Amino acid sequence: MNYQEILTAIQSELSKIPSEGEVASYIPELAKIEPTKFGMHLYCTNSGHYSFGNSDERFSIQSISKVFALTRAMSLLDEDLFKRVDVEPSGDPFNSLVQLEYENGIPRNPFINAGALVVCDILISNIKNPKNDLLDFIQELTNNKEISINREVFDSEKKHSYRNTALLNFMKAFGNIKNDIYLVLDLYIHLCSIEMSCKELSEAFMIYANGGRLLYNNKKILSSEKIKRINAIMQTCGFYDEAGEFSFRVGLPGKSGVGGGIVAIHPGQYAVTVWSPPLNPKGNSELGMLALERLTTLTGLSIF
Amino acid sequence: MNYQEILTAIQSELSKIPSEGEVASYIPELAKIEPTKFGMHLYCTNSGHYSFGNSDERFSIQSISKVFALTRAMSLLDEDLFKRVDVEPSGDPFNSLVQLEYENGIPRNPFINAGALVVCDILISNIKNPKNDLLDFIQELTNNKEISINREVFDSEKKHSYRNTALLNFMKAFGNIKNDIYLVLDLYIHLCSIEMSCKELSEAFMIYANGGRLLYNNKKILSSEKIKRINAIMQTCGFYDEAGEFSFRVGLPGKSGVGGGIVAIHPGQYAVTVWSPPLNPKGNSELGMLALERLTTLTGLSIF
Amino acid sequence: MNYQEILTAIQSELSKIPSEGEVASYIPELAKIEPTKFGMHLYCTNSGHYSFGNSDERFSIQSISKVFALTRAMSLLDEDLFKRVDVEPSGDPFNSLVQLEYENGIPRNPFINAGALVVCDILISNIKNPKNDLLDFIQELTNNKEISINREVFDSEKKHSYRNTALLNFMKAFGNIKNDIYLVLDLYIHLCSIEMSCKELSEAFMIYANGGRLLYNNKKILSSEKIKRINAIMQTCGFYDEAGEFSFRVGLPGKSGVGGGIVAIHPGQYAVTVWSPPLNPKGNSELGMLALERLTTLTGLSIF
Amino acid sequence: MNYQEILTAIQSELSKIPSEGEVASYIPELAKIEPTKFGMHLYCTNSGHYSFGNSDERFSIQSISKVFALTRAMSLLDEDLFKRVDVEPSGDPFNSLVQLEYENGIPRNPFINAGALVVCDILISNIKNPKNDLLDFIQELTNNKEISINREVFDSEKKHSYRNTALLNFMKAFGNIKNDIYLVLDLYIHLCSIEMSCKELSEAFMIYANGGRLLYNNKKILSSEKIKRINAIMQTCGFYDEAGEFSFRVGLPGKSGVGGGIVAIHPGQYAVTVWSPPLNPKGNSELGMLALERLTTLTGLSIF
Repeated sequence: MNYQEILTAIQSELSKIPSEGEVASYIPELAKIEPTKFGMHLYCTNSGHYSFGNSDERFSIQSISKVFALTRAMSLLDEDLFKRVDVEPSGDPFNSLVQLEYENGIPRNPFINAGALVVCDILISNIKNPKNDLLDFIQELTNNKEISINREVFDSEKKHSYRNTALLNFMKAFGNIKNDIYLVLDLYIHLCSIEMSCKELSEAFMIYANGGRLLYNNKKILSSEKIKRINAIMQTCGFYDEAGEFSFRVGLPGKSGVGGGIVAIHPGQYAVTVWSPPLNPKGNSELGMLALERLTTLTGLSIF
Repeated sequence: MNYQEILTAIQSELSKIPSEGEVASYIPELAKIEPTKFGMHLYCTNSGHYSFGNSDERFSIQSISKVFALTRAMSLLDEDLFKRVDVEPSGDPFNSLVQLEYENGIPRNPFINAGALVVCDILISNIKNPKNDLLDFIQELTNNKEISINREVFDSEKKHSYRNTALLNFMKAFGNIKNDIYLVLDLYIHLCSIEMSCKELSEAFMIYANGGRLLYNNKKILSSEKIKRINAIMQTCGFYDEAGEFSFRVGLPGKSGVGGGIVAIHPGQYAVTVWSPPLNPKGNSELGMLALERLTTLTGLSIF
Repeated sequence: MNYQEILTAIQSELSKIPSEGEVASYIPELAKIEPTKFGMHLYCTNSGHYSFGNSDERFSIQSISKVFALTRAMSLLDEDLFKRVDVEPSGDPFNSLVQLEYENGIPRNPFINAGALVVCDILISNIKNPKNDLLDFIQELTNNKEISINREVFDSEKKHSYRNTALLNFMKAFGNIKNDIYLVLDLYIHLCSIEMSCKELSEAFMIYANGGRLLYNNKKILSSEKIKRINAIMQTCGFYDEAGEFSFRVGLPGKSGVGGGIVAIHPGQYAVTVWSPPLNPKGNSELGMLALERLTTLTGLSIF
Repeated sequence: MNYQEILTAIQSELSKIPSEGEVASYIPELAKIEPTKFGMHLYCTNSGHYSFGNSDERFSIQSISKVFALTRAMSLLDEDLFKRVDVEPSGDPFNSLVQLEYENGIPRNPFINAGALVVCDILISNIKNPKNDLLDFIQELTNNKEISINREVFDSEKKHSYRNTALLNFMKAFGNIKNDIYLVLDLYIHLCSIEMSCKELSEAFMIYANGGRLLYNNKKILSSEKIKRINAIMQTCGFYDEAGEFSFRVGLPGKSGVGGGIVAIHPGQYAVTVWSPPLNPKGNSELGMLALERLTTLTGLSIF
């Protein structure tokens, strides 16, 4: 089967499965998404685009934006970055606070909220206008000037940010946040509020499959050494406390968001995005996990 | 550089580094190992054997044996195995007991002690003479009838097994150990006491690089699907709470032991073993970690 | 109201309350106790005995025996005892294991299982025949040679002791258990299996209300300083993670057991025991808690 | 010995002990206190005032103010208060955050920071001008209009309140903080900044020794039932994770503050305050603990 046949098979097979998951509801803007949305887009390094369903419709990328923030921070800093945030899996959902206390305010990895907040703090210290800079960066990755944030999501997340404010204050007490707390929170929520389609995310993640180069113009964005490290962090930390399960079933580096999106990459082969809003109890897209498991089974290929 | 040139460069470079690590000392038999021992052996799927230093000297494989136990259990059982042991990274060194309590006696993964003890319990339930069976299995993987245990190490570990006995009793209280506790402990310690050289370990781990087939006679030992899953677990859980760091710096699935050995594999390319007894504070061979980091840097290849 | 009128009022009032608790069921011998059993006995330093209901029927004293074990250990040792077991409340039900790990095998207090096991270990090191010695001690406290263990309870507890065996092995790994694990477990279970009536328990606990002297012959059993310390530990640690609630509602030092018994003392005034098998979710007798709350309300007296 | 002789003996004995503790240093205003300050004041229900040393010098009462806040809240509310804050000891210093996460934002007791913040939130919801109201309340207890806050301490604490802000945001995410976070923090810090002398604190705490009545005019401030409950909470929760140790060595309900003050009461007998700035590793006045231990030893009286 070629990629299009495989994607069509996945769509056909999974459309029949009744979803048991629930759409994220902590803010109204996410809760009102149609749960039956389902799209997938695979962007191959050699043979271009394959897709099905709602693959061109934009959704809230949420935590997927943490990969863009980390990438931008790694383009500015070297090892110093990892003195302020570790690269270990977080173990369990409770760890965020417990672990911060035991490990003196150093978050376990850049993909838990605490870690992404430290990355945002670093971006503010090193970039003049970080909100614009990050949007520009994503627009360059996708070669698409239209990518932007959803203002309603942004405003709504602001009103529900007590937990992240708690994390920021806690890390500030340990000296691991350097800038004003509300400035850091503002950038963090700005990034979570970005909207992209499956196609756009696959295009943006192509640099992780293509050794750090844009496929459309061959420009080097990041060294292949750093790209490998980001891929390694996606592999071990990309799915909260389900990272082992994803690695076990799918076998690719990836990152999920509570908007229902999952992006994964196969180095040298492709970047792939799937979108289905209902989440499993661990907070990852239920159908998205299955679709990617079917993809690596049907292609017979994983990084392992 | 070819593999031999790379290994020679690693030997030359790392021999100069003064070790800050400490040899494992919880049993006298491990404590008396010469700390300057240093060997490495790479077994390539296409081009055979490369090595340096003490690569033919046998050492105590300790936790590396957990991969063999898991492999044998997966050859006997399917999904049922993973109802009794999870596949998630363990988060931190304290988690073993805490996590067992929160998660009702289900260990986080098969490579922490609690998980390996459950795997041993499963082997006892499914195999007539598991101690002989496992040795036969490893002898077949290496095509070498001489591999056996070190009796002094076995006896000494038996005298220092209070923590593992505590884990077994605790899981028995939750119903996740089915056989007699001392029978399970006996098998577990038997496996930890096996002695192998870097060369023999690379030969044994070739099945994980070769899609489940023995390279020397092409016999299928395990399906490629199951081999991928074992590799995924090695990637996310193979190095205690340093799995993320190893993934980040080396980018290969692998498994370490407190005897100072580390085995890693690059699917389709090679299996490689390095041995140096001094351990870093997380319990992994200090020089071994560096040697494998240099290997993937100098070859320019990792799974990411 | 005098004490008898108060006890009669409590019996009348509480007999109407439908119990929502459940009888302990981890061993069959406890599960088959009649849940409607209800008795209370108050032994006043000045005016003798008051009681109602099943106050003369023997039941399994279980954890109440931890007070006798501690008392005997304090009669043999001074401050050294508290190098091996602390005197702080345990915080929450999970703490037993977590806390042991963080605090290097030193139990939080002598009334959690881990702490009582250390006390038993100390008794074995210091007494020739500790099982007989402890029974003799309790017989002297009560002036009653008939007090003994229930053999069925003893045998049944032995079969369900995985958790306590886990605790023992874990503390042995830290060096805080000196004797053979099964010898310590045997003494611990022996003490839990003792059977006494409300009347007998009130008589035995009179030394804590009477400054360390037997009331029946004025013999000094323990110094008043040590008695005060035991009372303080009962106050802060006598009710698992409900010690604060008991202190708040009742205001007396006391100790409960899963057999449904609770003993409390008012220094200088009385020792009182209540027995009702159904337990609340924290493991303390539901009606027993209420009865003692009514007692201090109706007498208008607590230590505060 | 009468009380004055006992206090003089304590002063003489403890003045010779070289302090190993350290003065609280998280804000400069506390760090610059003279560490050799040492005063004690005992206010007897029957026989008036006894003192030594710097007993008339005001110091920062810090956490001792939590008792006043709780008392005022209990005068306004009944059982409803204890739906939002529990009465159990907190177990260990890490618990504040961990426990909040496991128990859904309900603090363990009103004397840990999280609990006192909830009490402040309740005061704001129920009182028009809580900062003035609480000062008025303390002025009435002491019959002294001059008691007020230290403005430098107040300003400095405001600048070092990240951890308390984290706690507030975290509890707000659980719905257990109803008012604006900065309003709650402002009241909390206001109370911590109050300055009082040993004499004034003993006078203020006389209501807890005198069944809820002011001694100077016999006015009823709180019912004796509620006073007993506050005393019970002081007994089990008044000394962070050293409550058991204090209960064990001193045997009186009490409350400490990082300013080096400790107040304790013996119901029906006296209120006593000791002040010595150097703190032990658990955050309680080192000399203060010893002085109170000597007091109950020399008087031969404790509540047990």
